[in-house]
Amino acid sequence: MEEEEGEVKLFRTWSSPFALRIVWALKLKGIEYDTVYEDLANKSSSLLEYNPIHKKVPVLVHGGKPIAESLVILEYIDEIWNQNPLLPQDPYQRALARFWAKFGDDKVWESMKKVFMKEGKLKEEGIEEAKENLKHLEEELKAGGKRFFGGEVIGFVDVALGWLANLPSVLEEVIGLSLITQQTFPLLSKWTHEFANAPIINQHWPPKQQLVTKFKAMHQIFMNKQA
Amino acid sequence: MEEEEGEVKLFRTWSSPFALRIVWALKLKGIEYDTVYEDLANKSSSLLEYNPIHKKVPVLVHGGKPIAESLVILEYIDEIWNQNPLLPQDPYQRALARFWAKFGDDKVWESMKKVFMKEGKLKEEGIEEAKENLKHLEEELKAGGKRFFGGEVIGFVDVALGWLANLPSVLEEVIGLSLITQQTFPLLSKWTHEFANAPIINQHWPPKQQLVTKFKAMHQIFMNKQA
Repeated sequence: MEEEEGEVKLFRTWSSPFALRIVWALKLKGIEYDTVYEDLANKSSSLLEYNPIHKKVPVLVHGGKPIAESLVILEYIDEIWNQNPLLPQDPYQRALARFWAKFGDDKVWESMKKVFMKEGKLKEEGIEEAKENLKHLEEELKAGGKRFFGGEVIGFVDVALGWLANLPSVLEEVIGLSLITQQTFPLLSKWTHEFANAPIINQHWPPKQQLVTKFKAMHQIFMNKQA
Repeated sequence: MEEEEGEVKLFRTWSSPFALRIVWALKLKGIEYDTVYEDLANKSSSLLEYNPIHKKVPVLVHGGKPIAESLVILEYIDEIWNQNPLLPQDPYQRALARFWAKFGDDKVWESMKKVFMKEGKLKEEGIEEAKENLKHLEEELKAGGKRFFGGEVIGFVDVALGWLANLPSVLEEVIGLSLITQQTFPLLSKWTHEFANAPIINQHWPPKQQLVTKFKAMHQIFMNKQA
């Protein structure tokens, strides 16, 4: 395939969980690529040129052509490089995978953000929403009866939800709240360990203490805004 | 294909723009299906069973298996029935189509909702955001130089953005604001007319006066909440 000849470049930050999805996908498929680390306080002209709409990471540039939005990039990677497929082959199973990945972004991520960024009543609402959303994931794992959302190997949904395998533990250190435990969500808790420690995945986590420091500073800013 | 034998059923409301995407896609592909009209104030037990997470329309049920989330359903339909493809064949063009469809939901729709639901400063913010987002669509049409976002025929992005071809004119009657005109966004304005009047699309619009009545009532509720 001609595209396979093209240079692959990933614009990321050291901490973006959305960029991490792309790192995992490329590594799982064994694709060589160059990394450009962005400082979001001082974005490169290349990033602004490649993602003029959102001006965010990740951006994947393949043979000079840029793609933004991490779930869109994942689909692209899966279509271009067929080895170790992320999405299932069956159209119905593919639809379910896309559904859960979207659920992760629209609902789980948004509720967690509310927990982290808000105070008082809004934070309490966020906690209830997060628990409700995590319950759906727990039930999905139960229904599947497999190690991963994707079955016996890591798939699209696992990569999309991968941030759940480390950010909640960072959240715990910053705001003292444990959302995913063996008691509350046993299968999801088991999944976070299995996923976090799986080959390839386990080599690419950002340093936890560095994340805690960053999120503590961010949390302080949000709290000051509401004070 | 075995799936082609399965019964196709669409759960929708008469007015949902997201459900309309599925109507268009099925009709463009010439798929026979049954329609179940839902009253969202009194949801059927089938809807709650088929979409327990979001409890929303549209839901497509194919051979007894339910799929929720309109963009996910569109991908499924395109994978199951190959005729009149919605997504392009080329992986990079597919990625761009998915990017713009997501942009439509995450940015354009959200900014329009803000215009419609908010008052004062928030509404003004919404108007600025909506204009900025529509400008991106205008530029995309200009770059493509074609009748539709999908080229010379209606594609994935056209179907996803189809609500732009009627809801802004409803908005105009309800809150007296014209966002897409020949003066402000000439190509987008032309596209709304081309799309709205295209064969198949033009047969399935909900009655405009009925939409105006519905949106007027909704708008009143939002305004009362903020009063």
